[in-house]
Amino acid sequence: MPNAIVGQSGGPTSVINSSLAGVMQACQMRGAEQVYGMLHGIQGLLEEKVCSLSERMKSFINIELLKRTPSSYLGSCRYRLPEPEEDEAVFEKLFAILKKLDIRWFFYIGGNDSMDTINKLARYGQQTGSDIRFMGVPKTIDNDLMLTDHTPGYGSAAKYIGVVMKEVIRDATVYGTKYVTLVEIMGRNAGWLTAAAALARGEDCEGVDLICLPELPFHEDRFLAKVEKMQKERASVVIAVSEGIKLADGRFVCELSDDARSVDAFGHINLTGTARYLSNLVARNLPTKTRSVELSILQRCAGHLTSRTDITEAFQVGGAAAKAAFEGETAKMVALKRLSNDPYQCTTELVNISEVANYEKKVPLEWINEARTDMTQDFLSYARPLIQAELTPIYINGLTQHIVES
Amino acid sequence: MPNAIVGQSGGPTSVINSSLAGVMQACQMRGAEQVYGMLHGIQGLLEEKVCSLSERMKSFINIELLKRTPSSYLGSCRYRLPEPEEDEAVFEKLFAILKKLDIRWFFYIGGNDSMDTINKLARYGQQTGSDIRFMGVPKTIDNDLMLTDHTPGYGSAAKYIGVVMKEVIRDATVYGTKYVTLVEIMGRNAGWLTAAAALARGEDCEGVDLICLPELPFHEDRFLAKVEKMQKERASVVIAVSEGIKLADGRFVCELSDDARSVDAFGHINLTGTARYLSNLVARNLPTKTRSVELSILQRCAGHLTSRTDITEAFQVGGAAAKAAFEGETAKMVALKRLSNDPYQCTTELVNISEVANYEKKVPLEWINEARTDMTQDFLSYARPLIQAELTPIYINGLTQHIVES
Repeated sequence: MPNAIVGQSGGPTSVINSSLAGVMQACQMRGAEQVYGMLHGIQGLLEEKVCSLSERMKSFINIELLKRTPSSYLGSCRYRLPEPEEDEAVFEKLFAILKKLDIRWFFYIGGNDSMDTINKLARYGQQTGSDIRFMGVPKTIDNDLMLTDHTPGYGSAAKYIGVVMKEVIRDATVYGTKYVTLVEIMGRNAGWLTAAAALARGEDCEGVDLICLPELPFHEDRFLAKVEKMQKERASVVIAVSEGIKLADGRFVCELSDDARSVDAFGHINLTGTARYLSNLVARNLPTKTRSVELSILQRCAGHLTSRTDITEAFQVGGAAAKAAFEGETAKMVALKRLSNDPYQCTTELVNISEVANYEKKVPLEWINEARTDMTQDFLSYARPLIQAELTPIYINGLTQHIVES
Repeated sequence: MPNAIVGQSGGPTSVINSSLAGVMQACQMRGAEQVYGMLHGIQGLLEEKVCSLSERMKSFINIELLKRTPSSYLGSCRYRLPEPEEDEAVFEKLFAILKKLDIRWFFYIGGNDSMDTINKLARYGQQTGSDIRFMGVPKTIDNDLMLTDHTPGYGSAAKYIGVVMKEVIRDATVYGTKYVTLVEIMGRNAGWLTAAAALARGEDCEGVDLICLPELPFHEDRFLAKVEKMQKERASVVIAVSEGIKLADGRFVCELSDDARSVDAFGHINLTGTARYLSNLVARNLPTKTRSVELSILQRCAGHLTSRTDITEAFQVGGAAAKAAFEGETAKMVALKRLSNDPYQCTTELVNISEVANYEKKVPLEWINEARTDMTQDFLSYARPLIQAELTPIYINGLTQHIVES
């Protein structure tokens, strides 16, 4: 039997390694001679940096630790392949390496940009008559992939945000004095993660007071008016704000601050400082103390607080990708298809990678309430099943244990 | 039997409510007619804002939820009592309220400033022949109280920091590219929390590369030289930095940034922006990407990740305070006295409140290594027992459940 190879790409999540475990176990069960891991994704593969996962993952405890280890076990990259038609050399090199490793099944776990990689590899493979099957395995905390009900990684990040918002709201009310707390949440163009702050409300928590998504243009004056009105009803106002909110003219709110900004390999501006800017804005205009909290990378790497539903689905999409590839499918991504909300039932299906790559799925505007302050019940019915149940971390000597690099 | 009253003051922690539960249960068992709670501490008491804890906490599940609920259940304040000799009116008013409520036992859970409150109340009480017993119950994530081996609240915050640093280190290494990550940790003058970042190192984690405590003056040039040297050995450098680090001339490093700053009721500058300032400093001087992460209030309100040792000790110091007060002690604080590290054994004792109030215990300089980059084994032997074991959160519908305000 030939070999399989799997890589991880893009931003880390808490469950990306569960997908890795799913791909690996399914490939082994289906008889792959070797399962290789690319170190640092396609960029590492170009330098022939690979490891043998079959060797590394022989014990069950390693698989269990892998599922509980956040961030990309194999390392990641943000490397954008050129178009096959424009620069064939990179593809020739990659396919030569794959041939040398006797690869028949190729898996890439990632988000939009990673699906772009799979799309280009599959296209080049088809053009050159390669028999390698290329499969995309969805992963992103941002939940912005098209054609899938949701994306592995989102449920755990949403659960983390729900839990932490409850804690922040408790903390913010403690003095009983006027306080506006702005919590900055990830999500460049899609507000799925920020929307998850709505999950905090319940019998034991009054919930966040205002949610600002990047799907709607941000108006400073309307924002200040809302905050002023809310603070008349309660001293502590807690606001969940996406890092990616923009003014009507298209500028990011964080661009209004003075901080230096940089741009990554995909040309994305590094967004940060949105909550801090708004915190200063409120402090200048309203008679209240303010505070900003950035959930920062903690929201994507909190392996100590994951959704078991998410971990399980992440594992399943990995397995479904292997199954499909071994059955001859290529240029596809495994998607999650929801059958029902209550009871929550979900299955997998295959979608064309070209219909996923480089597109973004945003939060439907009808899931935002009319006052533009909160999410609707439809959103809660969508998101709540994804945060259910826990995977108990393995604590050793007081700290969560991760897989040891070998 | 007369009544007891208990209040919470200062910054919230994850275990301050466990001390509240400990005081309350012990007072009930010893026959207090009523256990009152001050709403928002001494400031609320001055406005006669109290509740009946005996009424609210009748069921065992409420006590269990209380132990798992972060932040101050009764609300907090940062109110500084005047000296009894300078302004008697406030004390007359307070003692009249206490008399009206038929209070014999008075408990205040908090840090340095709260012990100052107990100290003044006890002094005024003694001067005026009051029979009320005033007891301090220690609480602060900062671990900076004198005469106690450690302070309830520290163990859970230290555990949170250890767990999160492991996750951040995993996240930071993912691209294999040059990255300097600065993590800002609380601690105005004492570096106990920042030192806890040293706990992250283990079989499965290389640990943080540099720890900057407020106990040592900060030199920008030496800092940059250290970072440059470290990055030659590994691409990803993770640095734990206290919010309170100061230059040799006494200025806070965060004062060097341009952000607006404010001062609280005790005259403390709100420290924030230290990691951001250093992140910009590194980016300007070294050829590397940088990032700053503020653990912010998350480190003090993370009820979902607490140390069972800490929760248990917090409960015990509450109970010990009640026992001592009922036995006639006053003007005392319950302290923790460590008997041994391994096996870890710890008991409680009473110390004079006047020897605790307004003092600060700093990290011993001999617990910092010679290169001034890390903590010594002595620190680890001190801190490791405090983070042991977990109190399983109660999850309902995917989120941690807290006590419902009644």
